[in-house]
Amino acid sequence: MYSFRNDYSEGAHPKVLQALINTNLEQTPGYGLDPRCQKAAELIRSLCAAPDADVHFLVGGTQTNLLAVGALLKPYEAVISAQTGHVNVHETGAIEGTGHKVLAVPSPDGKLTPALVESVPELHGDEHQVKPAMVYVSNTTETGTIYSRGELQALRACCGKHGLFLFLDGARLGSALACGDMGLPDYAALTDVFSIGGTKNGALFGEALVFAKPRPDFRRYMKRQGAMLAKGRLLGLQFQALLEDETYLDAARHANALALRLRNGVAALGYPLPVESPSNQQFPVFPNQVVAQLRNMGYAFEIDRAVDAGHTCVRLVTSWATPEQAVEDFLRDLSACVDVTQETP
Amino acid sequence: MYSFRNDYSEGAHPKVLQALINTNLEQTPGYGLDPRCQKAAELIRSLCAAPDADVHFLVGGTQTNLLAVGALLKPYEAVISAQTGHVNVHETGAIEGTGHKVLAVPSPDGKLTPALVESVPELHGDEHQVKPAMVYVSNTTETGTIYSRGELQALRACCGKHGLFLFLDGARLGSALACGDMGLPDYAALTDVFSIGGTKNGALFGEALVFAKPRPDFRRYMKRQGAMLAKGRLLGLQFQALLEDETYLDAARHANALALRLRNGVAALGYPLPVESPSNQQFPVFPNQVVAQLRNMGYAFEIDRAVDAGHTCVRLVTSWATPEQAVEDFLRDLSACVDVTQETP
Amino acid sequence: MYSFRNDYSEGAHPKVLQALINTNLEQTPGYGLDPRCQKAAELIRSLCAAPDADVHFLVGGTQTNLLAVGALLKPYEAVISAQTGHVNVHETGAIEGTGHKVLAVPSPDGKLTPALVESVPELHGDEHQVKPAMVYVSNTTETGTIYSRGELQALRACCGKHGLFLFLDGARLGSALACGDMGLPDYAALTDVFSIGGTKNGALFGEALVFAKPRPDFRRYMKRQGAMLAKGRLLGLQFQALLEDETYLDAARHANALALRLRNGVAALGYPLPVESPSNQQFPVFPNQVVAQLRNMGYAFEIDRAVDAGHTCVRLVTSWATPEQAVEDFLRDLSACVDVTQETP
Amino acid sequence: MYSFRNDYSEGAHPKVLQALINTNLEQTPGYGLDPRCQKAAELIRSLCAAPDADVHFLVGGTQTNLLAVGALLKPYEAVISAQTGHVNVHETGAIEGTGHKVLAVPSPDGKLTPALVESVPELHGDEHQVKPAMVYVSNTTETGTIYSRGELQALRACCGKHGLFLFLDGARLGSALACGDMGLPDYAALTDVFSIGGTKNGALFGEALVFAKPRPDFRRYMKRQGAMLAKGRLLGLQFQALLEDETYLDAARHANALALRLRNGVAALGYPLPVESPSNQQFPVFPNQVVAQLRNMGYAFEIDRAVDAGHTCVRLVTSWATPEQAVEDFLRDLSACVDVTQETP
Repeated sequence: MYSFRNDYSEGAHPKVLQALINTNLEQTPGYGLDPRCQKAAELIRSLCAAPDADVHFLVGGTQTNLLAVGALLKPYEAVISAQTGHVNVHETGAIEGTGHKVLAVPSPDGKLTPALVESVPELHGDEHQVKPAMVYVSNTTETGTIYSRGELQALRACCGKHGLFLFLDGARLGSALACGDMGLPDYAALTDVFSIGGTKNGALFGEALVFAKPRPDFRRYMKRQGAMLAKGRLLGLQFQALLEDETYLDAARHANALALRLRNGVAALGYPLPVESPSNQQFPVFPNQVVAQLRNMGYAFEIDRAVDAGHTCVRLVTSWATPEQAVEDFLRDLSACVDVTQETP
Repeated sequence: MYSFRNDYSEGAHPKVLQALINTNLEQTPGYGLDPRCQKAAELIRSLCAAPDADVHFLVGGTQTNLLAVGALLKPYEAVISAQTGHVNVHETGAIEGTGHKVLAVPSPDGKLTPALVESVPELHGDEHQVKPAMVYVSNTTETGTIYSRGELQALRACCGKHGLFLFLDGARLGSALACGDMGLPDYAALTDVFSIGGTKNGALFGEALVFAKPRPDFRRYMKRQGAMLAKGRLLGLQFQALLEDETYLDAARHANALALRLRNGVAALGYPLPVESPSNQQFPVFPNQVVAQLRNMGYAFEIDRAVDAGHTCVRLVTSWATPEQAVEDFLRDLSACVDVTQETP
Repeated sequence: MYSFRNDYSEGAHPKVLQALINTNLEQTPGYGLDPRCQKAAELIRSLCAAPDADVHFLVGGTQTNLLAVGALLKPYEAVISAQTGHVNVHETGAIEGTGHKVLAVPSPDGKLTPALVESVPELHGDEHQVKPAMVYVSNTTETGTIYSRGELQALRACCGKHGLFLFLDGARLGSALACGDMGLPDYAALTDVFSIGGTKNGALFGEALVFAKPRPDFRRYMKRQGAMLAKGRLLGLQFQALLEDETYLDAARHANALALRLRNGVAALGYPLPVESPSNQQFPVFPNQVVAQLRNMGYAFEIDRAVDAGHTCVRLVTSWATPEQAVEDFLRDLSACVDVTQETP
Repeated sequence: MYSFRNDYSEGAHPKVLQALINTNLEQTPGYGLDPRCQKAAELIRSLCAAPDADVHFLVGGTQTNLLAVGALLKPYEAVISAQTGHVNVHETGAIEGTGHKVLAVPSPDGKLTPALVESVPELHGDEHQVKPAMVYVSNTTETGTIYSRGELQALRACCGKHGLFLFLDGARLGSALACGDMGLPDYAALTDVFSIGGTKNGALFGEALVFAKPRPDFRRYMKRQGAMLAKGRLLGLQFQALLEDETYLDAARHANALALRLRNGVAALGYPLPVESPSNQQFPVFPNQVVAQLRNMGYAFEIDRAVDAGHTCVRLVTSWATPEQAVEDFLRDLSACVDVTQETP
């Protein structure tokens, strides 16, 4: 049975793995100062149409987030995030670990808007309060939704008006690129810093962090946080493999297509999916009995939340590695569950 | 021409790479909660004869060091290190980044002794001074030397007497195991926490951190520092591949043997090697002209320091990946340099 | 005209000032290791019926709060606070500056209850979330309300059940002692650590921090945070002067009585006071025009919030130093405003 | 018997105390936004001939130091200090507590020179090392010595050349002003930030921190570190009282004169004073027996260090409060000790 638990259950996309195999005995300087990282950075600048962008390669998502926030904020400054934002609820206080407060805003769909940003009391506060200095958004969001270009432009304008950095966490940027109306140049143009997630879209590990402007001494900050990989070329190599052709996008398209198949199949069986997600995370609501039956069958997935005493919202995640057959099997097995459940009342 | 710059110039030992290939499409839970990490941890506990040891897998060396120090020390506590210690000079202030002072002690050979530890003024200080709470040593040291069992036992006794944790940074533990008189059980028995370095001895990346006693919530601290790898099983897999047979030791023996060949060859040509290193780092002193000639030939290595106006101490590092031929070529080419140099006066 | 802006507009209570004058040329050791601090600490232990309590004297409230939190929490741990809690909104991120997240809970009256504490998602969370380790309450609260003994007992039980420290910020403990049903022994018995505020009740400055159990090396932590006063005896002296007789309580009773007079007078004039405050902070709602008129007359006070387009909630604070006449004048002048306002519609 | 332990054994200079008494019932806004602080800041700008200087008032010395360093340095940057510097040895790791390394340089007289600054290896290092960004000096130094204008100018030039901030800790600036060749305008012109110490020269407490250029949001940083005094006017008041006339200088002249009297008297009795101190700290070397006898007589002072098995270097400190008679008594009693000691061999 398949695990829909997350998009990092497997190893690397075959093309990425092959690149690692092919170059295994190559000798390079360490710490990302190698030709592979240089080429991958050039490739990203070119794909972003951002010749001045400052590109760095990191191992993981929380690491990337804390470095972006920590590098740009002064000690008394804070970052605004949706309540559901990864930096707010899922990083064991990593942002606070760099000394900064996360100002969390309740948001119905995991997204921020100018109005939500401007609802933060500290934005209108005094020197006894933290100074908001950054807006954090993720795309896709933690609830599977995505920002349109118009929405991101509006946030950009809002940030400009209030002197805020705009940081976009692209741990799942592949999925957003594959289903949204923005390309890499949009992200580079509209944010001060954004990340391109590798871990959840084909890499063994790796996130590329793209600053709109050169960020002096960022490498020292990386090193100080224990975030500089000795064999840095592993990161460059993987991003090169993913981005030098359509691999990165194709991997995400595959994940999104299977997620849509799941969504449609689940909906056809009469189960609600309250979140309008076009991306590789789907959040159906099942009777608790169905959840139990699916688990007994061996399916793995995460619980999002209890909806009421009898229903649970679960999270189903697909990836580049998900076989079509796994989705078809799941839907078939789910339809079997349905009968049982309907007999219950 | 070969690079003797460091022991992380290449990728992974073939056996490690094969393990990654073989398991690439396996699905596992994330963040190190997978069967591979569990098995690797059990293997380490068994090899260490330390059934209660708490084993965690991390990506890099500086990360490992800052986590070990940060997890064990209270805010006002400090760690004692040799002046040349990695945590003191080569981590861009990562330890201070966790809020702790490094109390550096000059040491002739990169090693600490009870007398050196007791020479730290703060050990006899008052509440206006930091409180020494840990001794940091590395084995092999940054200068290639190693601790004997007797020396580590003496440090252990000293730490016990003064209420200090003993932390041994094993970024190059393989090399120490292959040339010293201690095995893993000695390290587990004599330290409060030590690391087993993968990055410099066959892994793509990875350090195992071994606490003598269970360390509650260490995983939360890892996560907060951005140090929890999403596809954690990559770490478990690699350590399993290295440690389930003699691979780890053999890799280090190979590196040490070639380093010894280098040492003997260099000495035979009349160049001094002031540091008595039995391990995979050698520090010969060459006339500056020889250094330039070797570089012109394409050899890469790091400069350790200028000895005097005409001489430079360089660092030559071997690894599991170094071909014997590279060493023979180097010595042959070095002997060619010699002639030129001797003509100089 | 009088300033009702806060309870630290003036200098010290005459008795405190006299103590400073009387002892000015006494020579004592520095840093709080003097007989004055020892006596004040003994006095507090005795008044608290807590012979083992660990008492420290600090200069200011934010300093006291960050030290209490920072001393008791591990890096990945968090403190639960009401949304309106001082540590959450009024300390420019001081708690986050020590690396800890504040988990804020909306509360209608500025107070926490077991149910509110248990509503914190992180209390039921996993290792990717911060670990709640402390409940922060203030008494009186930031909105002027107070905890009853029964309420604090319930919180104590809740903290015990969940393994949480209970920290009570007593920046305005005098006011709470003077109008509530708890004495110092209750605070000592029911909390893990609480503070006795001097700054807002008669001292030039100074907060006493009382740990239920000895807190080893807390003085080192104080020093490291820049919180150890050189002439520490100034703190001991002031607390001795305030607490060796009824001065501290009398000062608070005076403030509370005048606040009640304000409350009753304002209510008699028909203005609402939505918060049920028995303490020295009152929050009447005035038409904006009245606010403007009072300010024109020279009265100073803080704006709490805009209630609607035409009304503003203001904060009036009394202290040991507030003259009765100032309150009578204010009420008389307010009644003059009323007429004008009532003509408006 | 008198305590020569330090220059903060007593309370406040009578003029300072009187100012506190005179204004005790004045109502002012809190947190240093009052007319007293404004006037004191203007006074300092005027005395410094630095109309653009940014002046802040803080409570204590360690607090002042950590705020100056923390405000100016980026996370991976470090401060260079003499080995004996207060920030290096006497603040329980306060600088490291803000995340910064102190790069300590051995110095024979507690002073830094361009050559010593340039001897710091990290100044010539790479991104794996902290980046030196500030030079910390104190005047007078911890060993009683002072910088001449020429020496400070040379350091200023050195700092300019290497892109380093120059921070001068003036905890004992009064003593330096009273015996050196520099006035306040020199300090303002030659440093990026310096402090004017009140605690050790007539104030109850208080340090003025003077930035050469406006330092945006420094007040937020103060608040975040718990360093913003509620009744901030107490600080402004004291500096006004000290600096509006010659009080500050006279207090220091008195202390220096008595220290010189001590120095000459001690030397006349044949005891060495190896440090050439013109300031209010003197470091005579006495036979251990003399030290014991003085203590038996009731004199208090700190031990600086053991010189050899039979001799101890002690520290004698004078202040504005030291009576001439105390010095005469000490010298008389010391001469009595001498006889006993000379009989010993």
